[in-house]
Amino acid sequence: MEAKDCKRKVILTGDRPTGRLHLGHYVGSLQRRVQLQNSGKYDEINILIADDQALTDNWDNPQKIRDNMIEVALDYLSVGIDPDKANICVQSNIPALHALTFYYMNLVTTQRLSRNPTVKSEMVMRGFSGSEGENDNQAGLPAGFFTYPVSQAADITAFKATTVPAGEDQMPMLEQTREIVRKFNSTYQRDILVEPDILLPENESQRRLPGIDGKAKMSKSLGNCIYLSDDPKTVKTKIMSMYTDPEHINIDDPGHVEGNMVFTYLDAFSRQDQFAEYLSDYSCLDEMKEHYRKGGLGDVKCKKFLIKVMEEMLTPIRAERAKWEADIPAVYDILRTGTAHAVEETNQTLAEVRDAMRINYFDDRSIITDWENWIHK
Amino acid sequence: MEAKDCKRKVILTGDRPTGRLHLGHYVGSLQRRVQLQNSGKYDEINILIADDQALTDNWDNPQKIRDNMIEVALDYLSVGIDPDKANICVQSNIPALHALTFYYMNLVTTQRLSRNPTVKSEMVMRGFSGSEGENDNQAGLPAGFFTYPVSQAADITAFKATTVPAGEDQMPMLEQTREIVRKFNSTYQRDILVEPDILLPENESQRRLPGIDGKAKMSKSLGNCIYLSDDPKTVKTKIMSMYTDPEHINIDDPGHVEGNMVFTYLDAFSRQDQFAEYLSDYSCLDEMKEHYRKGGLGDVKCKKFLIKVMEEMLTPIRAERAKWEADIPAVYDILRTGTAHAVEETNQTLAEVRDAMRINYFDDRSIITDWENWIHK
Repeated sequence: MEAKDCKRKVILTGDRPTGRLHLGHYVGSLQRRVQLQNSGKYDEINILIADDQALTDNWDNPQKIRDNMIEVALDYLSVGIDPDKANICVQSNIPALHALTFYYMNLVTTQRLSRNPTVKSEMVMRGFSGSEGENDNQAGLPAGFFTYPVSQAADITAFKATTVPAGEDQMPMLEQTREIVRKFNSTYQRDILVEPDILLPENESQRRLPGIDGKAKMSKSLGNCIYLSDDPKTVKTKIMSMYTDPEHINIDDPGHVEGNMVFTYLDAFSRQDQFAEYLSDYSCLDEMKEHYRKGGLGDVKCKKFLIKVMEEMLTPIRAERAKWEADIPAVYDILRTGTAHAVEETNQTLAEVRDAMRINYFDDRSIITDWENWIHK
Repeated sequence: MEAKDCKRKVILTGDRPTGRLHLGHYVGSLQRRVQLQNSGKYDEINILIADDQALTDNWDNPQKIRDNMIEVALDYLSVGIDPDKANICVQSNIPALHALTFYYMNLVTTQRLSRNPTVKSEMVMRGFSGSEGENDNQAGLPAGFFTYPVSQAADITAFKATTVPAGEDQMPMLEQTREIVRKFNSTYQRDILVEPDILLPENESQRRLPGIDGKAKMSKSLGNCIYLSDDPKTVKTKIMSMYTDPEHINIDDPGHVEGNMVFTYLDAFSRQDQFAEYLSDYSCLDEMKEHYRKGGLGDVKCKKFLIKVMEEMLTPIRAERAKWEADIPAVYDILRTGTAHAVEETNQTLAEVRDAMRINYFDDRSIITDWENWIHK
């Protein structure tokens, strides 16, 4: 990394606008984005609302994407994404991304795309069949979904991103982008595109947050989310219904903290100073866990503490959201301005790409003399 | 067809600029394009120089495409394509085509693309392997090549073409386009895209012209072409080397006219009045064939007649080409102007498509009120 310090550091990150953002997004990415934004270490931060990517498996329901566009922007602004420091932009309204996707498609084989493990597992998740007639209950695989790693490479390279903060599950996607970059630069003999590095989570608490039901992933489709925009009553209801330890029936029974969502969430969200304020029986989480393990600490007490911890975090987010909700035209203008900025920046990359491919016939009249030299040689 | 007469009739056609055009192109399409152009029956004729499509299997050699861009335009102009009547334009410089391809990709499954017989046979021709590890000597299949029927659907629909003049081998491509049109219009509930009809050749002489070596197809890679730009000496040499009847060794031997290229070309190009002028021994081609079958007519005599027939056709084409070759900047300006016109026209279609998909967030501010209505319902 040291050797690269001389070059501009550019982040690209984003979300599919298929629903409001939840605590899983917060832990897995939003929180860190705000840290990176405020670190002063990056020359540019781009946050892409990936509506085009969302359409690859929601092509028959664009209204859902449209409705969630403003929602996701509100989530960003409410957690502390600052449009003066980070550029929020809308994928579908950046034409260079379509053109780059189109040309990168020539640099990737269908065989390579079929081997992408991220696509493979997402195909299963969405019920797409990869091969013909494999299962009549499965829908065919839309070509746009099959090739979305190419579109993602277009997103990343259009901004000349050096850094993509993402989880380990996204490593194959990044590797696909890096391959396209190398193939483009070597084929067209220009050092135009930039190979991005993945920025993995620093610690366990930045990794994937399970759902309140204990399932590995918090996800809208599993209905196990706490949303950043949930009101206190909803948060309370959800935490009170949280999956804990089914063998911990009476308070005095010994309990498990592993796989117990209350403790998983406390691991992710609680701070030591909150014990003094909300649960002074313990000086720290380890002490609390110890008591739970031995027996004698009830789930309700734990959940009430978690509610206080969550509310401390969610209250300012809700306040910020309320402020922006009262001025949606301002949110709209942030998206519009950010997108206009992204259009300009990515058109610059596309111009370089087209120049390297020598298909920018009408930028100058050089094709005329080229042809005359060619025909007379 | 009668019922459709009230609507605008728009032609889309074109070529991959991978080499100069030859007699096969002339017989298979150019000749007819000029007829259609001059028929007065069409409101609009668009001729697309499909450099993007050529790049799907020439991505590592864009210079070849660049060099042949002006060549193909010269071929068009020399056969009588009139830029005042037909709009000649360059695919890569029409951004709407990339965007439409991107969105149509969601409406086609990979399974459907795999079944396209035109793609299947072209894969074999180009040495691409469809499945992993099938044959180590075959290159993997570029995703851009695999999905080019989608790009072709974008080309056709962007111009709202009603009519695509093409051979029977292109029927599966047209059917793919028609499927995309139906799926788009039904999914997004707007009657925006137009289902094109294929305009098949009217008679045998408009069908595929075999090569001078007798192989089924005249093709640059087979080296069996007579180019529209060949000089008289080259044409003579090629015709003198033409495949005739290997069993017709002595002049007096009976000969076959079927599979004999001299007669195949005479079928395609000679007119009855040319006998009086160049070969008055016969009043018509049937008489000449009869003599050849019986024995007594030598190949050289036949070939010399064919040379005269070809020269009568090629001389004015060469003269027209020489005129344009002397003014390449004018050719360049035709392409630039035609492309600018195509950009405008196809951007209109793309605007309608984006409006139907409701992703034109920044064209008006309606997403603001939409969101407010949605959130309060």
